[in-house]
Amino acid sequence: MIISMKPHSSPEEIQAVCRRIEDFGYKIHTIEGVERVVIAAIGVGDTSQCLESLEALPQVEKAMRISAPYKFVSREYKNARTRIKVRDFEIGGDEFIMMAGPCSVESEQQIMTSAEAVAKAGARMLRGGAFKPRTSPYDFQGMELEGLKLLRKAGDAMGLGVITEVMSDRDVEMVAQYTDILQIGARNMQNFALLKGLGKAGRPVLLKRGLSSTVKELLMSAEYIVAHGNRDVMLCERGIRTFETITRNTCDIVAVPALQELTHLPVILDPSHATGKRSLVPALCRAGVAIGADGIIVEAHPCPEKAVSDGAQSLTLEQFDKMMRDLGPYLELWRGARVAQELVSA
Amino acid sequence: MIISMKPHSSPEEIQAVCRRIEDFGYKIHTIEGVERVVIAAIGVGDTSQCLESLEALPQVEKAMRISAPYKFVSREYKNARTRIKVRDFEIGGDEFIMMAGPCSVESEQQIMTSAEAVAKAGARMLRGGAFKPRTSPYDFQGMELEGLKLLRKAGDAMGLGVITEVMSDRDVEMVAQYTDILQIGARNMQNFALLKGLGKAGRPVLLKRGLSSTVKELLMSAEYIVAHGNRDVMLCERGIRTFETITRNTCDIVAVPALQELTHLPVILDPSHATGKRSLVPALCRAGVAIGADGIIVEAHPCPEKAVSDGAQSLTLEQFDKMMRDLGPYLELWRGARVAQELVSA
Amino acid sequence: MIISMKPHSSPEEIQAVCRRIEDFGYKIHTIEGVERVVIAAIGVGDTSQCLESLEALPQVEKAMRISAPYKFVSREYKNARTRIKVRDFEIGGDEFIMMAGPCSVESEQQIMTSAEAVAKAGARMLRGGAFKPRTSPYDFQGMELEGLKLLRKAGDAMGLGVITEVMSDRDVEMVAQYTDILQIGARNMQNFALLKGLGKAGRPVLLKRGLSSTVKELLMSAEYIVAHGNRDVMLCERGIRTFETITRNTCDIVAVPALQELTHLPVILDPSHATGKRSLVPALCRAGVAIGADGIIVEAHPCPEKAVSDGAQSLTLEQFDKMMRDLGPYLELWRGARVAQELVSA
Amino acid sequence: MIISMKPHSSPEEIQAVCRRIEDFGYKIHTIEGVERVVIAAIGVGDTSQCLESLEALPQVEKAMRISAPYKFVSREYKNARTRIKVRDFEIGGDEFIMMAGPCSVESEQQIMTSAEAVAKAGARMLRGGAFKPRTSPYDFQGMELEGLKLLRKAGDAMGLGVITEVMSDRDVEMVAQYTDILQIGARNMQNFALLKGLGKAGRPVLLKRGLSSTVKELLMSAEYIVAHGNRDVMLCERGIRTFETITRNTCDIVAVPALQELTHLPVILDPSHATGKRSLVPALCRAGVAIGADGIIVEAHPCPEKAVSDGAQSLTLEQFDKMMRDLGPYLELWRGARVAQELVSA
Repeated sequence: MIISMKPHSSPEEIQAVCRRIEDFGYKIHTIEGVERVVIAAIGVGDTSQCLESLEALPQVEKAMRISAPYKFVSREYKNARTRIKVRDFEIGGDEFIMMAGPCSVESEQQIMTSAEAVAKAGARMLRGGAFKPRTSPYDFQGMELEGLKLLRKAGDAMGLGVITEVMSDRDVEMVAQYTDILQIGARNMQNFALLKGLGKAGRPVLLKRGLSSTVKELLMSAEYIVAHGNRDVMLCERGIRTFETITRNTCDIVAVPALQELTHLPVILDPSHATGKRSLVPALCRAGVAIGADGIIVEAHPCPEKAVSDGAQSLTLEQFDKMMRDLGPYLELWRGARVAQELVSA
Repeated sequence: MIISMKPHSSPEEIQAVCRRIEDFGYKIHTIEGVERVVIAAIGVGDTSQCLESLEALPQVEKAMRISAPYKFVSREYKNARTRIKVRDFEIGGDEFIMMAGPCSVESEQQIMTSAEAVAKAGARMLRGGAFKPRTSPYDFQGMELEGLKLLRKAGDAMGLGVITEVMSDRDVEMVAQYTDILQIGARNMQNFALLKGLGKAGRPVLLKRGLSSTVKELLMSAEYIVAHGNRDVMLCERGIRTFETITRNTCDIVAVPALQELTHLPVILDPSHATGKRSLVPALCRAGVAIGADGIIVEAHPCPEKAVSDGAQSLTLEQFDKMMRDLGPYLELWRGARVAQELVSA
Repeated sequence: MIISMKPHSSPEEIQAVCRRIEDFGYKIHTIEGVERVVIAAIGVGDTSQCLESLEALPQVEKAMRISAPYKFVSREYKNARTRIKVRDFEIGGDEFIMMAGPCSVESEQQIMTSAEAVAKAGARMLRGGAFKPRTSPYDFQGMELEGLKLLRKAGDAMGLGVITEVMSDRDVEMVAQYTDILQIGARNMQNFALLKGLGKAGRPVLLKRGLSSTVKELLMSAEYIVAHGNRDVMLCERGIRTFETITRNTCDIVAVPALQELTHLPVILDPSHATGKRSLVPALCRAGVAIGADGIIVEAHPCPEKAVSDGAQSLTLEQFDKMMRDLGPYLELWRGARVAQELVSA
Repeated sequence: MIISMKPHSSPEEIQAVCRRIEDFGYKIHTIEGVERVVIAAIGVGDTSQCLESLEALPQVEKAMRISAPYKFVSREYKNARTRIKVRDFEIGGDEFIMMAGPCSVESEQQIMTSAEAVAKAGARMLRGGAFKPRTSPYDFQGMELEGLKLLRKAGDAMGLGVITEVMSDRDVEMVAQYTDILQIGARNMQNFALLKGLGKAGRPVLLKRGLSSTVKELLMSAEYIVAHGNRDVMLCERGIRTFETITRNTCDIVAVPALQELTHLPVILDPSHATGKRSLVPALCRAGVAIGADGIIVEAHPCPEKAVSDGAQSLTLEQFDKMMRDLGPYLELWRGARVAQELVSA
């Protein structure tokens, strides 16, 4: 920690701050600048608590953390990529993973048709919501248990892994019975009760970035899950909220490589929620592959205009198929680059 | 709803959109503009679902809602202010309600000292967290049940109502046993499982605005609670997230009168989280009273630099007392204005 | 400056950074932490340039400035409030200054009627645009020189100071001939050619905060003007751009006291642009007075629905008059508080 | 335009609004909904002015524009891509254009070395600032005329086009003498005096998106330049300002295809300012090529740690060379896709 005192602080005030830092078990190092005194605190301890305490002192101008507030999810803790095994493939490894399917599970026929088409086009995972977070209490809230069963059935029939959202710590166990990956939605990224509940879920987690969450907060939420016992976490950039309204959200695509510098966890891109507009999805998928994401999760529906949710951003199954074919050469470049990286770091 | 077609849409494409609108039970009204056709849909129905469906059609350029997506919380539904009775006073009525206390309940002595001081200075409600939403899994997470009991005890001893946060739908019942008002934190404003759980809680709710939630989304979340059976909701502006970092959040103070134009629910201001800085709290409290909020919730602690959380934004108990005295003449102007409004609307 | 090295930097890499800091004339102080080395640089020098240079070095993790990047505008340089004399009154002193008038000067009758009404209601300054920054090239661009002359005439006739916007360094001299205060619009806050041109203008400047400018950037832009020779600068909070669309901008009202902690320059609030909605202006004016702004600049027009610009946020002249009467008791509290402050700091 | 009246508006109030719309030359179409009356205005006229006027009427709830506020820059006005000829190549055509060079021109040797290296690696344009917009008045402000001459000399020596920033309408003519493309910086995107001055500059313009400007505002600023006589405008996405601080700005990469849907003007990506961090630039360049930008403008410097500005985001010349080689296969895919598009639209 670095603590800068207000200019003209008295020696007593500086002493008081130093004592407080030492109470937290740190060694101190006082530096007299031209305008003010700066104190460096060295050691290992409860930095957050100490920072908060120092900021509450009237003569402290600013208290800054130097080391990251997360640990297990950092590259410094573990440099090698985390590979998460699902069925017969790995996320975070040498294969780019495509996850696709409708926003909501709506009927057996809808999810079966979707599963068949996305599997054929090259997807590895089937997505589909059974519990839906909806802004309005009057909107469709999901098929719940029935939806989970249909999703599982469709995935199994086509050899796909399945991913679906869980919205409450109360439901973790039940949802975990039916799904390969538990998805945490953007609005629940800091639902700490839920994050704790994932620790013992026995299933990998895809954690979506909150609408106004920083990259560091996303890592802190991942740290929650890991600290509570579940190391299989993947992160998902799905667009953040800004002043721009031409797209549903603003895709912070640079968060993908920025995260990969900081963490060993896989990073997935969600171009459907990031744009909210079907016509922009294929271009963003290309960019996502090129920038080096570990996978993509995308909405595709047999008949988007009849979808109960997110129709405007869903590809048709034909569009998904075409997109996958167009992505082919980009995926090949992706694999080449990934293998080269592994060689370098080996 | 107003639906604008892309320029050069064919008559068949326009027909297809019209039929879809009629399928949802609306009457249509087609308007031929110079560049494009615009369709007005008239009637009562599932607007959200219809809008989503239309936006998924390729020839639709934009589909816009004209009426508000919320109902029970709107001034159009009920014009008279909602008054929420707590103990022997009302929130939303002719008294400006001050809620104060520490961020977290830390010990019996701490909460008792706080309760005594804020009661003496004129507060009506005692605040204090027993379940704490913390960004880091390594930070203090609250005293939980023990904290609830201490808070209740302190409130009762000083004749104060108590307010505390509930973080999971699992805990609603338990927390409701100990508190007069259930607080929903900013990060849970769209935790829909929790919102539903509040419907039958039998306690008024203070709903904090999410860090990146619009005024309309805040109203939609309030609508969730009301639609699930609980009409006693108050809203809380506590600062939103913007690019500015000099304060912890950016206080959108105009949301207070903007909300009061749209809803009959009481609106409370939280200057502590809005600023994150003790020195700015009294000025913002004055502004909150002057702009016409129904109350304020503010952090005050016997010894902020020893607080386990939010010390930098907590007033000392002496500062709280001084602030309350300074607010006196502003509160008098507030009462005069409030009584005058009631006369006008009577 | 504080420079934190990446973990596991080699002694040679640390040496290289130290040498670079010393090249800029600073003394260094190396602190060995548990995970990484932190270097403190002490002295007076070209901090910006040094910081940029250090950040470009691959082993530097972060380089942080401790002291503020501005000087002349800071409270540390000069603690006493800057009082700016205009005609027979002062801005920044013991009088709260109301500036009012139409968005644009449209005709002699319009500006004369406006001037008469706002003067009678208690305004000290008449506002009115002659050069208008408009988002569309097809919108009314202002009456230019003719508008300046009418504004001056109306101000003189009613004993009001006048304030108007200047949009290009080319026009500074001409506009300065006709106005008491030169206004710099939000979109030009970082038009550095214009800022430099104001240094020798011989007129006080009201500098509006940019739509997405931080408080510190606003102070840096003020520093430009002062550094180029003009000390009479006042700052204006007029709302920033956020994700919220219910108001035209989001009023960062806390910027007013936050600025007053950092600078001795007067701070003015613009509730018209901050809200974009007439009905919200009076409430925000009350808040602006209560929070301690030095003045307000507000739009008022004889007939807002015929205004060539900003009609929706303009008060009618009757509304302005009523608002001024309602503000009376708040202004009295303002004066009491201001005088008390002066006594304290004397 | 669509105008929605407040609920319970009286027939007289509706009549008044209708008359006002007709005064502006529009035909009206009144639609009686369940809750309120909606009025459609049909025709061609001064929509902006009419909208502003209507929003100023107290019974109008909202007035919405249906058609775009820009014209010449829209795909509806001209569908074929604008190709801008510079020296012996075209921007917006079948070649992906790389523009590279240092942030600032610093010396003959520096700019010559840079020009040679970027030309050899495959760039077509040399960038370099002679007039620098700097947040601090104490930072290096550019070599001005001397810098322009050196830039021109270096470009000519290596067969590169040159691009440099102009900051004031006063300087347009001078800068235009030395440069092939005039660059307008983000902070000047709505410097309307400057935009007008570009109309007769006789040089193509690269217009950078403002830090908090929407895609539509960017198009409106381009419309300014076109409306004043200069059709050779290209747009540049360079990151917007959000709450995220891990990168200097947040790259809104989806703005690239979103713009290409709306406009025929070329769209360039600036990964250096978008990220502010050298290590993230190559990944974002790949994404920019994959998403279909028309070109990239990137900072490269012989010795970034000695750069007078933007060193942290500048590639070394070696890194630029490596990046260009790595981009090779992506550029080939780009060309294939571009040619395929031309075939389709032909």
